[in-house]
Amino acid sequence: MNILVAHGGGPTPVMNSSLQGVIEGVRATSRTVKLLAGRFGADGILQNDLIDLTNLNDHTIAMLARTPATAIGSCRTKITEADYPRVLETLRKNKIGGLLYNGGNDSMDTCHKLSMMAEKSGYGLSVMGIPKTVDNDLAGTDHSPGYGSAARFSAIAAAEVGADASALPIHVVVMEFMGRNAGWITAAASLGERISRCPMITLLPETPLDTAALLAEVERKFSQGKGLLIAVSEGVRTLDGTLFAESGIVDGFGHKILGGAAQRLSDLIIEELGIRSRSEKPGLLGRASMPYVSSVDREEAYAVGREAAEAILRNETGSMVALEAHRNNEYSYSLTTAPLPLVANEEKKFPAHWIEDWGIAEEFAAYCLPLLGPDLPEFAHLR
Amino acid sequence: MNILVAHGGGPTPVMNSSLQGVIEGVRATSRTVKLLAGRFGADGILQNDLIDLTNLNDHTIAMLARTPATAIGSCRTKITEADYPRVLETLRKNKIGGLLYNGGNDSMDTCHKLSMMAEKSGYGLSVMGIPKTVDNDLAGTDHSPGYGSAARFSAIAAAEVGADASALPIHVVVMEFMGRNAGWITAAASLGERISRCPMITLLPETPLDTAALLAEVERKFSQGKGLLIAVSEGVRTLDGTLFAESGIVDGFGHKILGGAAQRLSDLIIEELGIRSRSEKPGLLGRASMPYVSSVDREEAYAVGREAAEAILRNETGSMVALEAHRNNEYSYSLTTAPLPLVANEEKKFPAHWIEDWGIAEEFAAYCLPLLGPDLPEFAHLR
Repeated sequence: MNILVAHGGGPTPVMNSSLQGVIEGVRATSRTVKLLAGRFGADGILQNDLIDLTNLNDHTIAMLARTPATAIGSCRTKITEADYPRVLETLRKNKIGGLLYNGGNDSMDTCHKLSMMAEKSGYGLSVMGIPKTVDNDLAGTDHSPGYGSAARFSAIAAAEVGADASALPIHVVVMEFMGRNAGWITAAASLGERISRCPMITLLPETPLDTAALLAEVERKFSQGKGLLIAVSEGVRTLDGTLFAESGIVDGFGHKILGGAAQRLSDLIIEELGIRSRSEKPGLLGRASMPYVSSVDREEAYAVGREAAEAILRNETGSMVALEAHRNNEYSYSLTTAPLPLVANEEKKFPAHWIEDWGIAEEFAAYCLPLLGPDLPEFAHLR
Repeated sequence: MNILVAHGGGPTPVMNSSLQGVIEGVRATSRTVKLLAGRFGADGILQNDLIDLTNLNDHTIAMLARTPATAIGSCRTKITEADYPRVLETLRKNKIGGLLYNGGNDSMDTCHKLSMMAEKSGYGLSVMGIPKTVDNDLAGTDHSPGYGSAARFSAIAAAEVGADASALPIHVVVMEFMGRNAGWITAAASLGERISRCPMITLLPETPLDTAALLAEVERKFSQGKGLLIAVSEGVRTLDGTLFAESGIVDGFGHKILGGAAQRLSDLIIEELGIRSRSEKPGLLGRASMPYVSSVDREEAYAVGREAAEAILRNETGSMVALEAHRNNEYSYSLTTAPLPLVANEEKKFPAHWIEDWGIAEEFAAYCLPLLGPDLPEFAHLR
């Protein structure tokens, strides 16, 4: 029997490290099993369009850890009941006995449903989930592979842009970060303040935005002459619950495509306060940038991929490999599993008690900093 | 007599390397000269608000090379004739015999005028310019320190976002790069295509944008299913010469503050073609990011700063230290000088014959690639 691996949803900068883990996990356990990948994830499964990863050379495998996005491709196609016959056909044609699905909430839901579908059809299929999401909103795991690198990007990029904003304090700089519903990525930006010493305001989607109060705080902070950086989540909402930046476009999973929160906030500051302002939106770069990858995140992403491959070859099924974190003294992690249905139906919110007025509580730093890796930058301060 | 160093205009990621060069150049030549810095550039000179850099410890000096923006601060204040008495007062009070001005066109103009002002007043002042601009529009030098790193950011960030856009080809990705009048930074993004293999379109401010023709090209390229990344300069103009993204706000030098070209183009693609699109705008991160710094650029920035300090201590005056590039076989550079008035009044445009339909000619790659440093990434391609 062969193994099929597929990527679902938006990439992370360490998704290919999980793929490397899968490849090396299969190789270490069995030399007879073929490892196939869905080209562009579910789309490849539905169209029986697979990539044979069995005989990749070592150089290419090693290069995966330095390759952003996903080398085998992904999609936002949602497999529905109507697709089950085509999925079964692909599984049968390629003698697939194990399915490894690397993704977030939606992918774990797909993963779980395919597992039940196979059981119903009497087709012997083991299914294991590999966690992934820069958003860190996956349940059943202390944190998600991909988040450490996205958080490291947020923290250091905010520190660097903050250094610019305070070295030439002629404008308020508004910087937008990803995260539709959960503030994990934007919260990490607040860690940049301790490196740059540029005053910051951090706005998460979890806290309804009182624009009048915000503008008063912007005026107060910027008038101190040390610059001001506002980190704003793309998903921030106003007091009446509507999105601050509403575009109305919807993606394949029914999620609204957002964008423009920073630009809008920047315009508001210019118009209402008469203070110069500009906006930045690294956007996809925050999930694709390799120089900002966290070494801890990369190692963990590899480990969950490898463990999932080894588990499926031990005939385990029905769960997602998950991370347990040990934060006493030096940080370390261990691997565990979480049942797929639990992961599929839950969204891990940013803890409400970690949100302070215009900023983030110290408890978040204790949670997040170890995930960024040990080598955070320090800046010279001569002013 | 003492030396005064000042930073003018927008930072670059290697401006502090030039400062390190200045500090070490002064130290190597003289142990009695005091080195002072204008806190926030011209503002510090006008207010006699100086930072004494004479006795910095070695650790802090070394840290400068890893610190973004400018550790001594900068401003966009333009020194005018009305300010000359205050400038002279600061020079006299602090026994300044040498002025080192690190900046772009505007700063070199200021530098030149201060030199003439001192001569007229009978105050003995040597003046040397240190080149700096991510925009690469400085005359009298093959390229400007700061450009190599900004170009490296453009190329690699475009490669990484391109990898994302082609791994999950559900939308056209539009990415905005800095450069009001000159396309140097945006052109470098086109180099990312050879790394990511994601089809690209590159739009410089030098070429009036025919939106109808562009939309036809977007449709043609995106329909091939390999994703599409559009690199657009913030300063791109339409056929009638107006800015594609017009905000109308003006900075202290009378330059229009731009922003939103990518967002606008993305909206246009959605509305006119019905194709999903999203926009990214790294903005200030492109001139502040340290992990993308080019080692060649950092070395050259250090060298021009150090040479300027040593030249002023040899009583040279009236010129900017400049770079000559040698591109036969292995890349190397040597130092030369350019007269300040020449640099002040010229703007180096992106060569028209390097611009092709929707892309950049190979000659540009030969010019630019050596400036990015020797360690460009390679990605694994499995699809």
